[in-house]
Amino acid sequence: MSITVLAFDGDDTLWHNETRFHLTQSALRDLLRGHVPDADVDSHLYQVEMRNLGLYGYGVKAFTLSMIETAIELTEGRIPAPDLQVILGWGKRMLTQPTELLDGVKATLEEISKSHSLLLITKGDLFDQESKLARSGLAELFSGVEILSDKNIDTYRSLLRRRGIKPEEFVMVGNSLRSDIAPVVALGARAVHIPYHVTWNHEHVPEDSMPATGWYRLDRIGGLAALLESIDQPASKEA
Amino acid sequence: MSITVLAFDGDDTLWHNETRFHLTQSALRDLLRGHVPDADVDSHLYQVEMRNLGLYGYGVKAFTLSMIETAIELTEGRIPAPDLQVILGWGKRMLTQPTELLDGVKATLEEISKSHSLLLITKGDLFDQESKLARSGLAELFSGVEILSDKNIDTYRSLLRRRGIKPEEFVMVGNSLRSDIAPVVALGARAVHIPYHVTWNHEHVPEDSMPATGWYRLDRIGGLAALLESIDQPASKEA
Repeated sequence: MSITVLAFDGDDTLWHNETRFHLTQSALRDLLRGHVPDADVDSHLYQVEMRNLGLYGYGVKAFTLSMIETAIELTEGRIPAPDLQVILGWGKRMLTQPTELLDGVKATLEEISKSHSLLLITKGDLFDQESKLARSGLAELFSGVEILSDKNIDTYRSLLRRRGIKPEEFVMVGNSLRSDIAPVVALGARAVHIPYHVTWNHEHVPEDSMPATGWYRLDRIGGLAALLESIDQPASKEA
Repeated sequence: MSITVLAFDGDDTLWHNETRFHLTQSALRDLLRGHVPDADVDSHLYQVEMRNLGLYGYGVKAFTLSMIETAIELTEGRIPAPDLQVILGWGKRMLTQPTELLDGVKATLEEISKSHSLLLITKGDLFDQESKLARSGLAELFSGVEILSDKNIDTYRSLLRRRGIKPEEFVMVGNSLRSDIAPVVALGARAVHIPYHVTWNHEHVPEDSMPATGWYRLDRIGGLAALLESIDQPASKEA
């Protein structure tokens, strides 16, 4: 069956995201070094984020709250409020920065949208993601947008059902093996992995736990049209 | 045309919400009284929330961040970090409390779902709302759930289009004139206003700015089935 629907992850697939979290996290390290020089800020923040994930979900607001919690805990309550105000400001800055597209995204999506229906499937904070999409200039290329609270087999399955899409005609493109590739391949659909140079710990999965087939890897999104052509089964071969 | 789709707001229409914000806000007043006895906490918090609305959207995480910002500003940075940690804890408590249904909700929805398709249309934080719905025990009664970043004429219009619902066959039920009633009536659909005993300032609209027809008011959700029967035009009258 021919590929009809191409779905894209947003963060770190279409636009830069994790880099901004890393930059902010590095500012947090610098800020806390003045109070607790020996603290392992990265690993404590990660613990706090994991502890809060079921409560806060993903996104900048969750990250900001977890940074404040980390700062208070690591300094044992000694951090002055003005420093926490600085952290609040970092969160706001992340929410207002322009959406910065990855190289080749606009041209590739414009080309592929001529022959395929495009979906955006992101997870995270609804308000934040809608705002990023609006600022990206890409919104009109998508026939639909789905913002999920998490990406797993169940949420992909119900999305495909709801939209009447068969797994065989669906391809998901994204940077996270855990969120964009593994659950999609498990449903019998195909996926294209385009790694981003920074990956959040939580999204890491060991490569050898991945299925051997059903997914492909590209260095950059520019190669997507050619890949699609090579893997697509024309409808006439179905018979 | 007969009413086929009945849509419900969630917060303060199906389950208690604003009361929890009010209780937390009252705890914030008590906490800050010890630092700045003369401060007008309520009005400062409201200003901060309005300033942040375009950035944070609605929901508990946004509220928590705005409480922290308010506490730091009103004390001019003198509030100790452990007090801010207490505020963080309030936010988490709000996110984990069980969903407490309003009186009559379960019975009414069970009855009406036999003859109508039910939609849940809420605004706010995606993660938070999905979690509340899951904990409510009502999820199976709804044929669809829509979580919007804002409720206005445009978002309702595109929702009805996307689902192929005609305004004449659609009735929205909610507690906010601004979010649940006015935009729906403006589209030519009908709405039922069920006031909640507390309303957030931001949702207030003067009654005399509301359209004269197209909407109804009930004291409690228990009267909904009877109201529907009285306003519904049987399909046979269309000819």
